[in-house]
Amino acid sequence: MNQSINRQVRLKSRPTGIPQAEDFEIVDTPVPVLGENEVLVRNIYLSVEPAMRGWVSDVANYSEPVPLGAVMRAFAVGRVEASRHSDFRPGEFVSGMFGWQDYAAVEANVIQRKITATDLPISTSLGVLGLNGLTAYFGLQKIGQPKTGETVVVSTAAGAVGSCVGQIAKIKGCRTVGITGGPEKARICRDEFRYDAAIDYKADNFDSALAAACPDGVDVYYDNTAGTISDKVLKHLNVGARVVICGTASIANWEPIPEGPRVERHLLVKRARMQGLLIFDYAEHFAEALQELTQWVRQGLIRYREDILEGIEQAPGSIAGLYRGENLGKRLIRIAPQD
Amino acid sequence: MNQSINRQVRLKSRPTGIPQAEDFEIVDTPVPVLGENEVLVRNIYLSVEPAMRGWVSDVANYSEPVPLGAVMRAFAVGRVEASRHSDFRPGEFVSGMFGWQDYAAVEANVIQRKITATDLPISTSLGVLGLNGLTAYFGLQKIGQPKTGETVVVSTAAGAVGSCVGQIAKIKGCRTVGITGGPEKARICRDEFRYDAAIDYKADNFDSALAAACPDGVDVYYDNTAGTISDKVLKHLNVGARVVICGTASIANWEPIPEGPRVERHLLVKRARMQGLLIFDYAEHFAEALQELTQWVRQGLIRYREDILEGIEQAPGSIAGLYRGENLGKRLIRIAPQD
Repeated sequence: MNQSINRQVRLKSRPTGIPQAEDFEIVDTPVPVLGENEVLVRNIYLSVEPAMRGWVSDVANYSEPVPLGAVMRAFAVGRVEASRHSDFRPGEFVSGMFGWQDYAAVEANVIQRKITATDLPISTSLGVLGLNGLTAYFGLQKIGQPKTGETVVVSTAAGAVGSCVGQIAKIKGCRTVGITGGPEKARICRDEFRYDAAIDYKADNFDSALAAACPDGVDVYYDNTAGTISDKVLKHLNVGARVVICGTASIANWEPIPEGPRVERHLLVKRARMQGLLIFDYAEHFAEALQELTQWVRQGLIRYREDILEGIEQAPGSIAGLYRGENLGKRLIRIAPQD
Repeated sequence: MNQSINRQVRLKSRPTGIPQAEDFEIVDTPVPVLGENEVLVRNIYLSVEPAMRGWVSDVANYSEPVPLGAVMRAFAVGRVEASRHSDFRPGEFVSGMFGWQDYAAVEANVIQRKITATDLPISTSLGVLGLNGLTAYFGLQKIGQPKTGETVVVSTAAGAVGSCVGQIAKIKGCRTVGITGGPEKARICRDEFRYDAAIDYKADNFDSALAAACPDGVDVYYDNTAGTISDKVLKHLNVGARVVICGTASIANWEPIPEGPRVERHLLVKRARMQGLLIFDYAEHFAEALQELTQWVRQGLIRYREDILEGIEQAPGSIAGLYRGENLGKRLIRIAPQD
């Protein structure tokens, strides 16, 4: 599937809420020519993630917003096609911030890592063995600090991060309770991701089901949603509970900031803690974390799902679909065969 | 001022919001007769505190609500009048949860401590050298964790806890910014409590004054208010900021929980932390903390103000007055002379 053009998905307009298909356009450009010390990567899988909403927003954020007209910022994994850098050779698999496009000509520091665990699919480097797994690993352990026997509640429990959080908490000897949307995802949480209990937040009995699933209260709440799901979980916090703020999937728009029940009284009465997570704060420990995660995946202690869309044409609408909850597992777009 | 009756301030009705004078009644009863091992304390100063709103509420809280008809729960400091316990002798000053009444016959474990630093007024044992000072000391240092050169913002900055927080932060080498109500309190914050800047939250220019007072953002926010003051401070949090949730003075009623702008996005983008404080979690370290606080007071590094009402008749209305902000400094009721 070599080709002489480089299809790029570019940001066409700046969305105010969740990015929609019409905010992007696909443009054919020439395959880039390598500069000195650069590496040419043929992308195979492009990543789609909730954080992309923030990347295209001009509201205060971790990073500069993607400029209008630029290639959409995205993690990707691909094969080195050509290299003018001594550390990289054609045929090696690499991951990095290569963008939503067929080809990227990048300097070596844009490449995050070589994929050497080739007994596992390279797509895992964008999910369970990539930032999703790392986010679960550090958020749960560094901020959540779960102890054996504690109850850990996870929102978007079947998602790429959530499913990993639940399984790491299980490895650590916790009671795990997953919150997810719909009975099928709840079943998968229990059967596949081994949650002790899984609750459908769309069901009428969510409140009572949550209380029944947490008979000893909630010690750690790993939150990927904010919104009304969190409002209900906070009522069950135990003294000394930790709330990991990892994502805000249920909030469509932060400008203006939406209102909700104030949290101060919960935090005060329960001497609880809420803390936000940015995974890059732990970058220096990524390598050892990936080793442990890789072992857990090989041992079957961490299972994962992927939701793979076929073809770069799927990219523009893929974020909105994520927010509609249509995927099950890490969403990827395959734009070339692995071999 | 010995007397043969014991005036008790009893809870007459359960308030839904801030306790008002008519929620209490003053009843004359006999001075209690000492049981075995008990100590008779003649209260001299009764304490009035914001937390009393919680103590009389039947909403989930740290402790059982004060029963209707019971003496109002309160800290007090007084003199031992009679003792059937070998550790206590008449004439010693002691503090503890003695209630809003003239006399308390208590077991030894109700007495928190003997006041031995008699070079300072015994009233300080209910304020700057009591729970207020300890709350400032542990909340700021254990949760706020201020570092030299950081900016520490304090709400109710002129209050019994807030003024102490500001001065400890100053001792630790921080830039201190106090938020208080009215120009006179702002002046006292600057002149007396040595805040680098003090802002009147009632002034029209609160937003811009806050921004101007925190040119390098906010690293620690010690919050005694919740509500709209906090909503504005959170916008200025720096990466890695710590928010100490110590009190919620600006929220009149938590049933139902009032709404406000959601905090998750601030915490996420700034990897910030909000954590509630209960001072009794640090009880094992109280003695050494009081030693250090006493030294700071003696050295003039911590100044304090007291707002002393005269006579037990003032007790019923004293909590509502606190929430109206009519006091400046720790509110106490003197019901007997110290000597």
